[in-house]
Amino acid sequence: MLVDGERYRTVWMEDGVVEMIEQRDLPDKFHIIELRTAEDVAEAISRMSTRGAGAIGGSAGYGMALSVMNASEENFEEDVEEAAEKLRKSRPTAQDLFYAVDRVLDRISEEETVEEKRKAAADEAESIADDNVESARKIGEYGNELIEDGYKILTHCNAGWLAFVDWGSALSPIYRAKRAGKELFVWVDETRPRCQGSRLTAWELANEKIDHRVIVDNAAGHYMRKGKVDMVIVGADRVARNGDVANKIGTYEKAVVARENGIPFYVAAPTSTIDLNSRTGDDIPIEERGEEEVTHMGGHRVANRSSRARNPAFDVTPARFIEGLITEKGVIEPTEENVVEVMEK
Amino acid sequence: MLVDGERYRTVWMEDGVVEMIEQRDLPDKFHIIELRTAEDVAEAISRMSTRGAGAIGGSAGYGMALSVMNASEENFEEDVEEAAEKLRKSRPTAQDLFYAVDRVLDRISEEETVEEKRKAAADEAESIADDNVESARKIGEYGNELIEDGYKILTHCNAGWLAFVDWGSALSPIYRAKRAGKELFVWVDETRPRCQGSRLTAWELANEKIDHRVIVDNAAGHYMRKGKVDMVIVGADRVARNGDVANKIGTYEKAVVARENGIPFYVAAPTSTIDLNSRTGDDIPIEERGEEEVTHMGGHRVANRSSRARNPAFDVTPARFIEGLITEKGVIEPTEENVVEVMEK
Repeated sequence: MLVDGERYRTVWMEDGVVEMIEQRDLPDKFHIIELRTAEDVAEAISRMSTRGAGAIGGSAGYGMALSVMNASEENFEEDVEEAAEKLRKSRPTAQDLFYAVDRVLDRISEEETVEEKRKAAADEAESIADDNVESARKIGEYGNELIEDGYKILTHCNAGWLAFVDWGSALSPIYRAKRAGKELFVWVDETRPRCQGSRLTAWELANEKIDHRVIVDNAAGHYMRKGKVDMVIVGADRVARNGDVANKIGTYEKAVVARENGIPFYVAAPTSTIDLNSRTGDDIPIEERGEEEVTHMGGHRVANRSSRARNPAFDVTPARFIEGLITEKGVIEPTEENVVEVMEK
Repeated sequence: MLVDGERYRTVWMEDGVVEMIEQRDLPDKFHIIELRTAEDVAEAISRMSTRGAGAIGGSAGYGMALSVMNASEENFEEDVEEAAEKLRKSRPTAQDLFYAVDRVLDRISEEETVEEKRKAAADEAESIADDNVESARKIGEYGNELIEDGYKILTHCNAGWLAFVDWGSALSPIYRAKRAGKELFVWVDETRPRCQGSRLTAWELANEKIDHRVIVDNAAGHYMRKGKVDMVIVGADRVARNGDVANKIGTYEKAVVARENGIPFYVAAPTSTIDLNSRTGDDIPIEERGEEEVTHMGGHRVANRSSRARNPAFDVTPARFIEGLITEKGVIEPTEENVVEVMEK
């Protein structure tokens, strides 16, 4: 997407270096960081310099390419496996991470020589990124068909282009609808604790000149009850075999309240986010992050000093609350049969 | 309640001066401010130096006492009515505010001379404060009967003693249960945007040595779904005739998600919070506060600079989501019949 008129992806590789938008400093400061090893990439994912299922996947693919590029001839297998493990451990929930690591490993296993493997890994990482962009673009096309002119749409967290290599999942249909000339309004949940909504989604929407208002997460239900929300679209970090969805903490509440108010609740995610090995959402590991994300704001402590906090980063929304999964292969009702089928398409 | 071993109310009057705990600086700094006119009190309510239905009511009663004390003999009626208007306009949603102002006005209308009116107003303000404390204490007794040993209780915002003259509404049953020797755990919603949960409720619970964890508002549903919440208790800013409840923004979402998970959702409020003139919750005016409460955290801007925000301070929870209203006259199912009856008791 465009930043000050220049076209960017969130992550890319040039001359053997991975370049990445540093998202922790957005929206105040836009700058690019350079990563030279798989370990660098794993750390960038872990500290959330990049975040969002698709962007994590794209970055992990490039991280694997770096690992294969840098692996010694003598200890090639071990070096690559060690790097893969570091990447896999950088965040526990996003399925795209595991998808990307495995995809590069599978691809290089088809080649004989180290030289061939190095080239194959770099090519595969580019393919992963390109496929991510193309999936997000198609999600936009399918999702756009669900959006009527004049719709007020609620979204939670950031599942925009910053959360992908480009375009995004939840915001891609909105960008597409805007380009199709539809009038739109977006309610942006600020998304505590890290405020990816008020920082990143609001920045994206402002760049695209889409009318929006930031609200505290608590206010989403109020506007739903008041008839001010026509649909909800969110992204996903992992989709289980039965259609349950792990996504940013708070997603579950929005889904329950949306159903209570008869508002369709959609999850937009490429099939790379589906994990057939997670039978239900309760098989998906939920990352718990540091307490200071809850107790502190803007660098200083808000919460009572002697109080402890809990900070689950994701929650699980059971499939029954989800009107449809918007994938790059079409919109499906989230049942096990449909989820398995869309993976085989 | 005790602060560092010393007994405090949130607001009181001494030698013709209203003294009030400055809640905006809690929990970092505990200090008392002095207010000498009804206008001072109205401003203190408006800027939220004191907040919470009962504390606003108690303060408004004392504010009226100041207005009667300071009113000129010549323009007595006009001076008092002007002060009453300023107090009524200080916050729009909390019913206790209007209740307290009217109660002092009614009381002084019974007296003949200005001298008698001045004494009656001061007495009535004390009665309002004492009644508030006594109601809160009784709410604690009735509410305690609903709490089983080992319960994990979720609360939203601060409806503790800081929100009343003493004891509180939602937290009063918890304090009572603790004193009865029950083992308890409290999930504290931080309650964006002003974080009365992580600042005030957490501070109160820490002072009372009650085990608790602060969570972002988004995480409440996650723990409900995981079976980690046995009951929800919140306060109320106004209860409509049909049992609908206006309370801090986000209350509605918690109520909907609690019902989805079969968790009893209780509202604790004295009958002074009931407004029989509001037929349903939709008749209750909802205050909208400044955007900067949403866009800024810890004094600096978090949200994207070019984005606007909306900031409703309260929402309405329909009566059907409420298991019971815990009043000083007992626990009632929130129906119009019961609400009207409890007011007449």
